[in-house]
Amino acid sequence: MSKPAVGFVGLGAMGFGMATHLVKEGYPVHGFDVFPTSVERFKAAGGIPASSLEESANGKDYYVCMVASAPQVQTVLFGDGGIVSALPQNATLVLCSTVPASYAQSVAAELQSRGRGDIYFIDAPVSGGAKRAADGTLSIMAGASDTALEKGKFLLETMSDAKKLYLVPGGIGAGSNMKMVHQVLAGIHILGASEAMGFAAQLGLDAAKTADAIKSSDSWTWMHENRLQRMLEEDWHPGASALTIILKDVGIITTSARQNQFPTPLCSTAEQVYLSALLQGYGPVDDSSMVRQYYSEPITKVSNTKSTEENAEALQLVLDVMQLTNLVAAAEAISFARHLNVDLKQFFTLVSDAAGASRQFMTKGLEMIEGRIGQSSETVNDVVSRLEKGVQKARDLHCPLNLGNAALSVLLMAKQAGLGAEGSSSMIKVFGI
Amino acid sequence: MSKPAVGFVGLGAMGFGMATHLVKEGYPVHGFDVFPTSVERFKAAGGIPASSLEESANGKDYYVCMVASAPQVQTVLFGDGGIVSALPQNATLVLCSTVPASYAQSVAAELQSRGRGDIYFIDAPVSGGAKRAADGTLSIMAGASDTALEKGKFLLETMSDAKKLYLVPGGIGAGSNMKMVHQVLAGIHILGASEAMGFAAQLGLDAAKTADAIKSSDSWTWMHENRLQRMLEEDWHPGASALTIILKDVGIITTSARQNQFPTPLCSTAEQVYLSALLQGYGPVDDSSMVRQYYSEPITKVSNTKSTEENAEALQLVLDVMQLTNLVAAAEAISFARHLNVDLKQFFTLVSDAAGASRQFMTKGLEMIEGRIGQSSETVNDVVSRLEKGVQKARDLHCPLNLGNAALSVLLMAKQAGLGAEGSSSMIKVFGI
Repeated sequence: MSKPAVGFVGLGAMGFGMATHLVKEGYPVHGFDVFPTSVERFKAAGGIPASSLEESANGKDYYVCMVASAPQVQTVLFGDGGIVSALPQNATLVLCSTVPASYAQSVAAELQSRGRGDIYFIDAPVSGGAKRAADGTLSIMAGASDTALEKGKFLLETMSDAKKLYLVPGGIGAGSNMKMVHQVLAGIHILGASEAMGFAAQLGLDAAKTADAIKSSDSWTWMHENRLQRMLEEDWHPGASALTIILKDVGIITTSARQNQFPTPLCSTAEQVYLSALLQGYGPVDDSSMVRQYYSEPITKVSNTKSTEENAEALQLVLDVMQLTNLVAAAEAISFARHLNVDLKQFFTLVSDAAGASRQFMTKGLEMIEGRIGQSSETVNDVVSRLEKGVQKARDLHCPLNLGNAALSVLLMAKQAGLGAEGSSSMIKVFGI
Repeated sequence: MSKPAVGFVGLGAMGFGMATHLVKEGYPVHGFDVFPTSVERFKAAGGIPASSLEESANGKDYYVCMVASAPQVQTVLFGDGGIVSALPQNATLVLCSTVPASYAQSVAAELQSRGRGDIYFIDAPVSGGAKRAADGTLSIMAGASDTALEKGKFLLETMSDAKKLYLVPGGIGAGSNMKMVHQVLAGIHILGASEAMGFAAQLGLDAAKTADAIKSSDSWTWMHENRLQRMLEEDWHPGASALTIILKDVGIITTSARQNQFPTPLCSTAEQVYLSALLQGYGPVDDSSMVRQYYSEPITKVSNTKSTEENAEALQLVLDVMQLTNLVAAAEAISFARHLNVDLKQFFTLVSDAAGASRQFMTKGLEMIEGRIGQSSETVNDVVSRLEKGVQKARDLHCPLNLGNAALSVLLMAKQAGLGAEGSSSMIKVFGI
């Protein structure tokens, strides 16, 4: 039996990979994008170009929407000549864009109010970057009615890694909430990768060696490993992952956090640095360019003149700052997820194998999730002392260390709250949960 | 009786004013500076130029040191051809530079260990800006032995306003500690002035009208009023108060806070923005240039096209963000002062009449100091809601709002700590005191 036609909108870095992967898997994919060059490129890759949104949706029983933001989704779904009015009865509509959970819920409501409750709607944000999109091995967090999930599952399975398709309980909005709490980590770790490498450069450390040490340490993050090559090569144009993309995701987080009156101090700190960089013109370029906020020259140009001992000492400062920033990031993400009633076990499984992963999340985060927070032998006081050394050194070098400082403030608040002598992962209690 | 000769080193913006005021009051002042042009300028203003440090100190019974930082103090006092070896027996040495309390104490110890315990040493940092320095109306926070204070009091009185000479109990270091906790407020409010005016510009508000509204509101700070003209005129070269000066003071605060393991989240946030600006080349220019971190054009160029109602609404957001940032700043400064056993009554009197003053400090801060923190009818939850509106609006405009976001995080932590329903000034409890 031949595979069904699929409509697709949003052929950017991620969408292009997803759509061409569907093509490779034998689906006739009718792709549209506001940029004609993207449609041309899609055609060259074997896709079927649609000359309008309407054409991409007309008569398609399956449709994937991968535009960049909620306002764009609103326009392509419900605007004049939009997707919804063109879709046939009982079509399946998969929304893969990252949007606020409340917005995904408003789409479901608007489908009803427009008399298109027949459409099987799935809230299914993705994670994993352009390469995994093209390989069909994304992480997908899908929430919807059971019937809708049944209908769309084959598409989700085609675009995701078999082990990385998460059917999130809770219906429409649950997938977006899961993605959002995942992005708390992604949003912090993207800046954290630049902060660590910039601090290392200010310390006169060799960039490649520092990166190797981070990768094999307790300071490891998926984002650091992923952004590293672009950071070293300063391959920022065109952005593989433009600053504006993570800034949009972080904006969803902080806006939702404010609506929930929940503190996200590290994510807010990262957001402020991203906004400053935006003001400096970094919006369209790759987010690995954030290293410029910490060091003015290419970090590969640092000439290392230290002794082996000095190098080891300086490297330890970088590792400590990064590790303990990641510890606080894990606590922030987990406590916010718990506040939103996100299934923490599924959250842990998902993060561990996705772009938000960090060694700290997978060890200390697991302690927090499983309530084993008294067990670690290192106390909050111990990690405060360790982090302070790096923060002080950065200050002595006049190196900004936004996340390191914010993490230290949170840990010191935890200490002031009387948690100093407890195991380090008990600092999560400062988030009040 | 003729007035005694006074040696003076450090003829920068502040030191020049102080030294020339002493000249005006009839003292023969022998001034030195590493920049010959500063010495020439001092000569033109009636001072006696010294051709070397040694010459400025030789035979002088009274000496004032007003260089910029502890490392500079160390060099001019104890370096080759330095002041200490040139001063006569029983000379009085007044250190007006802003230095860490621990450094002032180390100077006293080094005088002893070098056999110059005969010198009457006074730790006497100042505040008030270049104009008040020139008028002899500075605030001075002096700590020393009673005998030393007795010896040097006439000099302190000449340089300060009669009501603004604070003899701080606690000996050497006490003056510097008092100055430091004062600077917590100054360091936050300097950035706060730029953040408020930059946010107002992003909102499309008229700069002069916004400034007038701030001045007559609960959001008032001394720093805003003082920096305003330079911010509007963009009169940044040469800096009346270079970014590097407040950055040095803030560095003393955060370093001391780390040594005391005490959280100073807003001051740390301000420091990170200052460090980023330093990396962008703003170090030597006036700190009112920090408005550039929030708005890319001169703020006077904003053309206001809003209705009266829209203007009032937008203005309220600016006022709320600024007011509540100042509330958290007051709590941060007061709790740190208490942690350092600073006399809070004297601290309150001093701040109220100095560069760190704010309407919030003088009202809510007083509640905190006097332990009347349950009394305010507005709760922590109320101020969270008020602050959130402005923070969200700034985010929607892609305007950084570093302090506003950091203040919100602190208030939300207070809420998570169970303080939501209490009077707003009880948020100070989140600092653990």
